[in-house]
Amino acid sequence: MVITRDNIRELLKTHKEESLKKLIGEAPITELIDIWDDLSEDEALKIFSFLDLEKKVDLINELPTSKQEELIRSLTAENRKILFEEMEPDDITDFIQSVSPEVREAVWNNLSEEAREETKFLLRFDEDDAAGLMTPRYLAIRSSLTVKQAISWLRKNVKDVESIYYLYVLDQLKRLIGVVSLKDLLSANDDEKIENIMVRNVISVHEETDQEEAAKILETYDLVALPVVDSYNRLLGIITFDDIIDVIREEQTEDVYKMSAMGGSTERYLDSSVFDLFKKRIPWLVILLFAATITTNVLAHYQTILQVAVVLSFFIPIVTGTGGNCGSQSATLMIRGLATGEIHFHDIFFVSLKEIIVGAIIGITLGLLTIVRSMYLPPYIDLHVAVAVGTAMVFVVIFATLIGAIFPLIINKLGLDPTVMAGPLMATLIDVTGLTIYFQTAKLLLGLHG
Amino acid sequence: MVITRDNIRELLKTHKEESLKKLIGEAPITELIDIWDDLSEDEALKIFSFLDLEKKVDLINELPTSKQEELIRSLTAENRKILFEEMEPDDITDFIQSVSPEVREAVWNNLSEEAREETKFLLRFDEDDAAGLMTPRYLAIRSSLTVKQAISWLRKNVKDVESIYYLYVLDQLKRLIGVVSLKDLLSANDDEKIENIMVRNVISVHEETDQEEAAKILETYDLVALPVVDSYNRLLGIITFDDIIDVIREEQTEDVYKMSAMGGSTERYLDSSVFDLFKKRIPWLVILLFAATITTNVLAHYQTILQVAVVLSFFIPIVTGTGGNCGSQSATLMIRGLATGEIHFHDIFFVSLKEIIVGAIIGITLGLLTIVRSMYLPPYIDLHVAVAVGTAMVFVVIFATLIGAIFPLIINKLGLDPTVMAGPLMATLIDVTGLTIYFQTAKLLLGLHG
Repeated sequence: MVITRDNIRELLKTHKEESLKKLIGEAPITELIDIWDDLSEDEALKIFSFLDLEKKVDLINELPTSKQEELIRSLTAENRKILFEEMEPDDITDFIQSVSPEVREAVWNNLSEEAREETKFLLRFDEDDAAGLMTPRYLAIRSSLTVKQAISWLRKNVKDVESIYYLYVLDQLKRLIGVVSLKDLLSANDDEKIENIMVRNVISVHEETDQEEAAKILETYDLVALPVVDSYNRLLGIITFDDIIDVIREEQTEDVYKMSAMGGSTERYLDSSVFDLFKKRIPWLVILLFAATITTNVLAHYQTILQVAVVLSFFIPIVTGTGGNCGSQSATLMIRGLATGEIHFHDIFFVSLKEIIVGAIIGITLGLLTIVRSMYLPPYIDLHVAVAVGTAMVFVVIFATLIGAIFPLIINKLGLDPTVMAGPLMATLIDVTGLTIYFQTAKLLLGLHG
Repeated sequence: MVITRDNIRELLKTHKEESLKKLIGEAPITELIDIWDDLSEDEALKIFSFLDLEKKVDLINELPTSKQEELIRSLTAENRKILFEEMEPDDITDFIQSVSPEVREAVWNNLSEEAREETKFLLRFDEDDAAGLMTPRYLAIRSSLTVKQAISWLRKNVKDVESIYYLYVLDQLKRLIGVVSLKDLLSANDDEKIENIMVRNVISVHEETDQEEAAKILETYDLVALPVVDSYNRLLGIITFDDIIDVIREEQTEDVYKMSAMGGSTERYLDSSVFDLFKKRIPWLVILLFAATITTNVLAHYQTILQVAVVLSFFIPIVTGTGGNCGSQSATLMIRGLATGEIHFHDIFFVSLKEIIVGAIIGITLGLLTIVRSMYLPPYIDLHVAVAVGTAMVFVVIFATLIGAIFPLIINKLGLDPTVMAGPLMATLIDVTGLTIYFQTAKLLLGLHG
């Protein structure tokens, strides 16, 4: 039986609790999350109560904030306590930072003493730094232990720890002096000393390291967990790979929003108020509107030509549109290349040359198509005009492609974010140069004056 | 000392090999990768020889294909053997699938018998399926073992395995019947039987599951590794979290390319030929060019009006540009919401209502700004015209916002990819409706005929 809202309703209505329990128990969490939005608060609570504790934690961590709040609010204090007992301190901290004040208090009151201490500690760090991702539950040992001692200690303490894959070796001052992977520990001889098998050159990040930087480091070394240290190299906590995956996903959403000239939060659409949505979108729209008014001036400049040959105005959207498409293609390739570290500013001449060649081939293709199209499809255009438009197209495309390639490299060199700046502002630059090229070419080829 | 190409050259030239060795030895791999493009083949080989084996493997896995090939080609057969011995079979398989035939042969000849068998096995599966990500090196045990026996067996076999975090329990037919995490194993009592501590409801994927689907499952359950089974539930291999991170990154690049109407490979820019780049970009440009020619017809339709009031043509780029920006903002929100599973087709009426309200507020803001701007900045426009343009702007923005929201939902409902289809085709639809709204409003308010 597939999980759908209707199925669940049906089973609830006919009091087939046992069948429902079975259905829910076997369902992957991903499916439950998919239908969660459609459930009423009561239904959601009922379903939630059928899950085992581990699944409850998985589910609640995956739900959007508003749904998390709803669920926590409807639980009894007793059930909340049991749930929070099982949740990781870093997830509790994230939760506390995102919910409304009343729910925050309810959460706080239902935390154990230990969890409260841990959460207080984690709340000291900036949400956006590497430290904002860490859990204070790690395994720390002394270098003087033997492998046998370490394993037996590990077996006693493993239960409370989220990530057991590395044992961090600390000195008396809590400084991180080495690391032993569980793999190395298990494959070593019983009487070997930890100090002889530990790796001394520990890969770690500073508490204020940018989260995306931390993600890159974890990825490069394929680490399951990354230790976070303070300026004295004292171990503060560890970031686990699952938190890094969340960072990468968030980054993805941000990048996509930036490409569409949107800023602000990456909050869920359905939960955002109209005012939130307005705030997110209006700033760039206003900037772009003012930038775009320059095109008004360009066109006003060619007023007399437009009066003589109104046909030229028919192609304005095609000139700006094609220019924009070509520019955004080359800009995207550059932005991606910059992000992955493949392309650097010093490649600018090589890149320009390549883009001029690619632009020329694309321009000629599109120019020829424009001429052919203008001749055989309505509105049938005079051949002279069609050739002028087609010729202009070649130059517009070359310029747009080139601007699209150079602009992000320069923006990046200036220390600004090319994803935000390049797209929208570049579009205006391309519109202005494109229209100028278009009218100049047309003037020349059609022998117009103005 | 910081790692730069100049530093490295200087140290190589002055034969300060020891200092260089130290510098390289302590450098994070991420920094080496950043400068790798700038190194000559000889320099790269030299630097590579200074790394310890583990770092060599990390580095080679992170390099782009062309650089991997270059390096492998310049190594001696002996060094290649040592390197491949240390590499994971799934990484070797990926490598073999991406390199040129000569290098492939060289790699193959330097593999151990065991690695060849494993690679052959992995090559049977489709690169794009879940099975294309897996390694055949996992830990499998019988359910009848005791915890003590399992731990002692584990300690003997842990060396050869990439991911040791789960022990998979198989029956005689190699079917996956349970899983024990290393954490549960270590915290259990010595004489407990595996069958009593194993989890029976194993989260796994079928060999032909889509890679992005596999990524979602691993993420939801925060798993370090995900088992891959065939149709008889026999364990084929496991996918580790680091391969999933690569899938998410690749997906990211693809999405960004799609938003800029590009298809084809996500190969590195610097390695792509001019023809590759042309092929990647031209298809959508041609489609968009033909779609955009509809705007020519729209403008031709209003020819007489344009002749009487040439000033109206000055605002064509602003109308299409602003419409396009508004539409792409709402489309991005929808596409993102669809991708994360937040928004569904049945939300279409709620979404439309919300977008009409947001669009109206944005439209009025931008419309007022357009009127003010037209009056006080060159080219000074007659107040009547400015009001007509501003009013038209309100309706254009509302329509564009609405189209941007609805279009992706419909495209997605039809089973097509909204990222590819929505952006470009929607832009044309918005241009055409936007221009029509603009001229109709202007006609009405200015009392023009034509």
